[in-house]
Amino acid sequence: MQQGIAEVNSEAPIGIFDSGVGGLTVAHEIMRQLPNEKIIYFGDTARVPYGNKSRETIIRYSRQIIRFLRTRNIKAIVVACNTASAFALEEVGKDLDIPIIGVVRPGAKAAAEATKNRRVGIIGTEGTINSQIYPDVINEYASGIAVVGKACPLFVPLVEEGLLDDSITKEIAERYLRGLREADIDTLILGCTHYPLIRGIIGEIVGDKVKLINPAYQTAISLKDLLDKEMLLSRRTATGGRHEFYVSDTAEKFKKFANSILPFAIGSIEKINIEEY
Amino acid sequence: MQQGIAEVNSEAPIGIFDSGVGGLTVAHEIMRQLPNEKIIYFGDTARVPYGNKSRETIIRYSRQIIRFLRTRNIKAIVVACNTASAFALEEVGKDLDIPIIGVVRPGAKAAAEATKNRRVGIIGTEGTINSQIYPDVINEYASGIAVVGKACPLFVPLVEEGLLDDSITKEIAERYLRGLREADIDTLILGCTHYPLIRGIIGEIVGDKVKLINPAYQTAISLKDLLDKEMLLSRRTATGGRHEFYVSDTAEKFKKFANSILPFAIGSIEKINIEEY
Repeated sequence: MQQGIAEVNSEAPIGIFDSGVGGLTVAHEIMRQLPNEKIIYFGDTARVPYGNKSRETIIRYSRQIIRFLRTRNIKAIVVACNTASAFALEEVGKDLDIPIIGVVRPGAKAAAEATKNRRVGIIGTEGTINSQIYPDVINEYASGIAVVGKACPLFVPLVEEGLLDDSITKEIAERYLRGLREADIDTLILGCTHYPLIRGIIGEIVGDKVKLINPAYQTAISLKDLLDKEMLLSRRTATGGRHEFYVSDTAEKFKKFANSILPFAIGSIEKINIEEY
Repeated sequence: MQQGIAEVNSEAPIGIFDSGVGGLTVAHEIMRQLPNEKIIYFGDTARVPYGNKSRETIIRYSRQIIRFLRTRNIKAIVVACNTASAFALEEVGKDLDIPIIGVVRPGAKAAAEATKNRRVGIIGTEGTINSQIYPDVINEYASGIAVVGKACPLFVPLVEEGLLDDSITKEIAERYLRGLREADIDTLILGCTHYPLIRGIIGEIVGDKVKLINPAYQTAISLKDLLDKEMLLSRRTATGGRHEFYVSDTAEKFKKFANSILPFAIGSIEKINIEEY
């Protein structure tokens, strides 16, 4: 038996990473749809946020994180951060001998399928919007769709401050989303893992007729398809709390946020020095 | 002549560092008060912000930056970031054979001298406020002063988004500062380098009778005293634009902000990989 095959087997864990806590919304959806899988989650809390940093820097950070995740003998990688998916996925995928998926492609596909009037909105970080990746990928799935993008840089700090249902968040959202409301879109991609946490406010502003796409849901479906195709789906029974969590800064704040998102209490969170990878 | 003395001479530059662009408000004040000095500025834009990260991480980052600055043969270091001054200054100072100062001590001293009713307010990042360093240092200068602290975590992203004179910034400031207005303070320290850029809004809310302390101004005075005492004041004539600027992420955004703060256009900004130091 070859070493490569011996190392990557269906009972190995799935590595998921994000700039910080936001990717837990993706991890949660994967846990829900793939309850037999064990997850190794890494949140880069010492260098968060990624949304306003350069492509070059995000690629370097992603490579370090993948080197760390591979020390845990993972069978696949999920880039649970839109900015890292936009800037780094293609580049880091070149070197890899295990499957890797991001959140952009599944979200773009879902939007291309959902739109009736062929007008889609996308909101995200500056990095994600400026990369133009969503318009590009949406038009791979269905050409001729008009895509209107809007960067919403204050949403992440507002969510991190816990202002999820707050008049200030509403006012800022109103300002960011005004143009989208007037652009006659019928589908809006929540292109940053923090945004589903304020989907109520976003939905109120853009109105009932606009379908909100949360790429986390579609990413879990795509991951399942991919693992199935590669014969890598776990055959265990549900693992519950055996997942492992790692961060690059101290664990306290991460733990609090994680316990508010996940349906079980996180046991241990280990801090590692990601710069060493 | 000993090597140490030969290397650190009065014509060597001063190293200044910050988590990003905020410290330029301090650099600017130093350029104004010490026009003969050459400055090497480093902004850690790849890992910004520092305000919500741990003491341990901020100490590691500060050590790396100091190792980089020392490759430029500097004669003194200014920690132009309140969070790094609060968490790391004492620790990194232990290893150093050149003078180092932060922004906390000069700001605290100015507040202790300014207050008449012995009630001082301090606003800053979560890290700076939770460190309790301002109350501790203020009471070193004058015991029995009541210090009321308030973390204002959204101010930095608001300033970075350029919402300097905006209704949203006013509303958030109103919420953060309400308690301070009711605490009967007569002096308020702007304990984060970004805050002087919204001092107008802050001043309106706390009222005319509250004196605002900008530690940048006091830091430049303290630096001048320190260099004078150590016989390290430059005897050159004004250097103008010969300062050097370094960042850990790409230079574009930094350059834009820098050119809005500094009275001259920055020529080159060099990106370096700070993790290698």
